[in-house]
Amino acid sequence: MAVYTEVTDEALEAFLAGYDIGSMVAFRGIAEGVENSNYSLKTTAADFILTLYEKRVDPADLPWFLGLMEHLATRGITCPQPVRARDGEALRVLAGKHAAITTFLPGVWPRRVRVEHCGPVGAALAGLHLAGADFAPRRVNALGSHGWRPLLERSHARADEIQPDLAAELDTALTEILAGWPTGLPEGHIHADLFPDNVFFLDNRLSGLIDFYFAATDFLAYDVAVCLNAWCFEADFSFNVTKGRALLSGYQAIRPMSAAERAALPVLCRGGAIRFLLTRLFDWVNTPDGAMVTRKDPMEYVRRMRFHRSARDEHAYGI
Amino acid sequence: MAVYTEVTDEALEAFLAGYDIGSMVAFRGIAEGVENSNYSLKTTAADFILTLYEKRVDPADLPWFLGLMEHLATRGITCPQPVRARDGEALRVLAGKHAAITTFLPGVWPRRVRVEHCGPVGAALAGLHLAGADFAPRRVNALGSHGWRPLLERSHARADEIQPDLAAELDTALTEILAGWPTGLPEGHIHADLFPDNVFFLDNRLSGLIDFYFAATDFLAYDVAVCLNAWCFEADFSFNVTKGRALLSGYQAIRPMSAAERAALPVLCRGGAIRFLLTRLFDWVNTPDGAMVTRKDPMEYVRRMRFHRSARDEHAYGI
Repeated sequence: MAVYTEVTDEALEAFLAGYDIGSMVAFRGIAEGVENSNYSLKTTAADFILTLYEKRVDPADLPWFLGLMEHLATRGITCPQPVRARDGEALRVLAGKHAAITTFLPGVWPRRVRVEHCGPVGAALAGLHLAGADFAPRRVNALGSHGWRPLLERSHARADEIQPDLAAELDTALTEILAGWPTGLPEGHIHADLFPDNVFFLDNRLSGLIDFYFAATDFLAYDVAVCLNAWCFEADFSFNVTKGRALLSGYQAIRPMSAAERAALPVLCRGGAIRFLLTRLFDWVNTPDGAMVTRKDPMEYVRRMRFHRSARDEHAYGI
Repeated sequence: MAVYTEVTDEALEAFLAGYDIGSMVAFRGIAEGVENSNYSLKTTAADFILTLYEKRVDPADLPWFLGLMEHLATRGITCPQPVRARDGEALRVLAGKHAAITTFLPGVWPRRVRVEHCGPVGAALAGLHLAGADFAPRRVNALGSHGWRPLLERSHARADEIQPDLAAELDTALTEILAGWPTGLPEGHIHADLFPDNVFFLDNRLSGLIDFYFAATDFLAYDVAVCLNAWCFEADFSFNVTKGRALLSGYQAIRPMSAAERAALPVLCRGGAIRFLLTRLFDWVNTPDGAMVTRKDPMEYVRRMRFHRSARDEHAYGI
């Protein structure tokens, strides 16, 4: 649920005057996304999304994100496109926040994932990885493997409030993950957050990808591992290997993984689980009561991580 | 912020198949409103709002609300119109909740109220009161004066957690309000919740009214008092008499108030303040941590009520 910053009508009017996108028809907060404030903006010309970047996003990264989205579109990926103001700038300031208008993408994200979604998601992820290959600028993944130990330290003292001995379990798991973390896998630009609410479908076809604000340069296979975490577990946290197989087959039909990438899947999946576990844990112990955001349960990723620790090899995922 | 009920894509598709409104293009949760779940629904034909009615709304009242909205539109009031499904029904069931699709209203609600908004709001409220006059069915105002004592009882024991001696202050204020509550004032159908986020403007003109789910049959002048509370206080809870005068002049240009109505304004305003104070207080002491809703501070209405208690007569409001 995300509208952290309210925009006054005068400020909005002044902001829109800088664009050549028609005059305003409607402006409504969108109850989706958790990092930024998103508004649906309708003008006499078209529908748009107005995003105000909140404190977790480093403004220095914004040109990279917007540049990546523009690059991907030129390579055939359907994703929101930054709309440039009359002065040629896509990145501006509104209500004291960095802000951008992007194009509106038709589609609906799947509230309940079915096997039929997973193949297209895998294929779209592979397509994204190939399309990004010739986007030269790199962005360090602040929430990649090097960031996890410092992140755990920031919540460690209070982890046991959520479940007894959780701090110790996370210590052990993280030590194992970092000790087994692969080297030398193919790198590229990854979405890093391709959860169901960032993938739109229309008439049973994948219609677009959104929310590139965690994108970074990292192992491509790690992005696959994030998707396995995001798309292939059931509500009881059991792993649905049919979904895993569909996702991996969809991916490999477009970009076959190397033997080293496939072999690394269990540890990459454990990494993917602990990454979301750690940010949720941090939010859980640091979100003030009454904040306009729903805290998500970190334990959902403890459950996933336990599955990954039981995975003997990549075949556990349906390969 | 309001999306309490998630709708699966299959359920939504099956639901829309019952309507003749084109096929789906987009479906996004709206971060506005606090009582129901609202989605923005775009089809190949038009934009709509899909509302799922949550537990505070009595399903038995829904036909009255939808009927009032239809009636008001025939009398020239711009408000959302229920869209009937192929079977002629506007009220249906989705995801286990009562649900309705209504038309999309262009406009933007004023995040910062200016004096220029207040006249049109007063005029629109008076227009609503006149337009509702020949809508025969009545609806008892559960949150009207008879409901306040029971509502206070439900939070009384915990009121002092918010501020020392708040329970005693509310007891005294409510006793005074009920003792001075007028009788015999003109009645009709009132909106009862005409706050800025329920009034849209476009190009500096009022473009429509939304959210009729607190509407009821009660004193018309009480609705004016609610608006004085909602539109005419500044951020520091000082009363802006210029805004009050604009709102009352706008109202009386369309429907002049009787001497009895005008004289009752101070007590009606105290009633309007305590009504929102009491529901906020109830929510404050009863909202579980982590709920997807922002608790609003009851003290904002204690501050308003104190102003109203200081008002000697209707002239305090700019009449």
